[in-house]
Amino acid sequence: MHSQQKVGAVIVAAGSGERMGGGDKLTALLSGEPVISRVVRTFENCRLISRIVLVLSEANLERGRQLATAGGWSKVSDICPGGRRRQDSVVAGLKRLPDCAWVVVHDGARPLLSEDLIRRGLRAAEATGAAAAAVPVTDTIKVAGDDMLVRETLPRRELWAVQTPQVFRRDILTGAYNNLGDDVVTDDAAAVERSGQRVKLYMGAYDNIKITTPGDLALAEALLKEHGR
Amino acid sequence: MHSQQKVGAVIVAAGSGERMGGGDKLTALLSGEPVISRVVRTFENCRLISRIVLVLSEANLERGRQLATAGGWSKVSDICPGGRRRQDSVVAGLKRLPDCAWVVVHDGARPLLSEDLIRRGLRAAEATGAAAAAVPVTDTIKVAGDDMLVRETLPRRELWAVQTPQVFRRDILTGAYNNLGDDVVTDDAAAVERSGQRVKLYMGAYDNIKITTPGDLALAEALLKEHGR
Repeated sequence: MHSQQKVGAVIVAAGSGERMGGGDKLTALLSGEPVISRVVRTFENCRLISRIVLVLSEANLERGRQLATAGGWSKVSDICPGGRRRQDSVVAGLKRLPDCAWVVVHDGARPLLSEDLIRRGLRAAEATGAAAAAVPVTDTIKVAGDDMLVRETLPRRELWAVQTPQVFRRDILTGAYNNLGDDVVTDDAAAVERSGQRVKLYMGAYDNIKITTPGDLALAEALLKEHGR
Repeated sequence: MHSQQKVGAVIVAAGSGERMGGGDKLTALLSGEPVISRVVRTFENCRLISRIVLVLSEANLERGRQLATAGGWSKVSDICPGGRRRQDSVVAGLKRLPDCAWVVVHDGARPLLSEDLIRRGLRAAEATGAAAAAVPVTDTIKVAGDDMLVRETLPRRELWAVQTPQVFRRDILTGAYNNLGDDVVTDDAAAVERSGQRVKLYMGAYDNIKITTPGDLALAEALLKEHGR
């Protein structure tokens, strides 16, 4: 990608956080800091990122603005409300980045991402215009129907568990969501795949966990300690 | 299954534990107790289990015998050395249970299993003679080849991440491994599937994690605390 092309980030944190037992990504503390603040800080520190859009639930907009002021987040140009489904929130964020040639979509619940992960994502997306962080699956995965009888054990060697960041040429991702209609996808890359575009995977990090339960938060604390961050 | 039929357990803990940073399942402490001891205790307490075979690495045999004596493990009839691959260790354990009609195979690195998980496994195996604990996959899983280009995003609704306990009629599992030859499988159920027998999945537990890194151990501690166990 040309170094003059602007890169925007969409950080999606509009979920209800109902499995967090009261806390959510804006209130749950990781090393004394709200989970979302650590995410934003990493994007703020990454030189390749020009602007950040933060997508929150209606209920969290005010709290988000307070965190932005307190944290001196200079790249956060918009804090906007999300939609009913994750993909609606991504689309809402995309609309705020009309001047960006590239977008990096990231889950607000993955606070352990590194700047390196963002950089490598941008590099991986160069050839196809679409890349997603992913790690090799370590579990044995089987396919079963409603009767719970195993139909197949999948060959593990080819399986990847997808994470964010996911990096796209903005026109490719916007076009993919326009084509998608009412279909539901579990990640942005899937929308792009359905539009017939190629998606490249690149090596994510097992540490880059998604925090959805209090147990996950404890694990994240332990991982931070382990790495002395 | 008839209540007169004997049920044996094979607990497999012959791996090197090289990702544990020095510790392994026999030395790493969980709430002050070696990981393997918690596993054995759960099987000792489960009334449906008649006998237990513990499969360890050569280097750990002596330490295993010490733990058995100190813990007063009355059901542990054999502590035997494992083989090169996980499946070799399971076969070694199976040979020590000729009098059992049913066998429960369990990873020594999954200390958070409950007696209930064992009981439900035995029930689930009744119709087909083979059952495996599994949990619905929450990650988005994609298939990619060596070029890292996405070939497919798998429909998540039908995907299960397999755990242990896995429960089998002993003759079915023994026959499956006899047929397998030099093929490598990542779980015992896969061997049974390849022999043409049906395998039933039953609901495992997300808490029933496999401890392979120090981070996993920290998570297990957090999960134990959360549940007040």
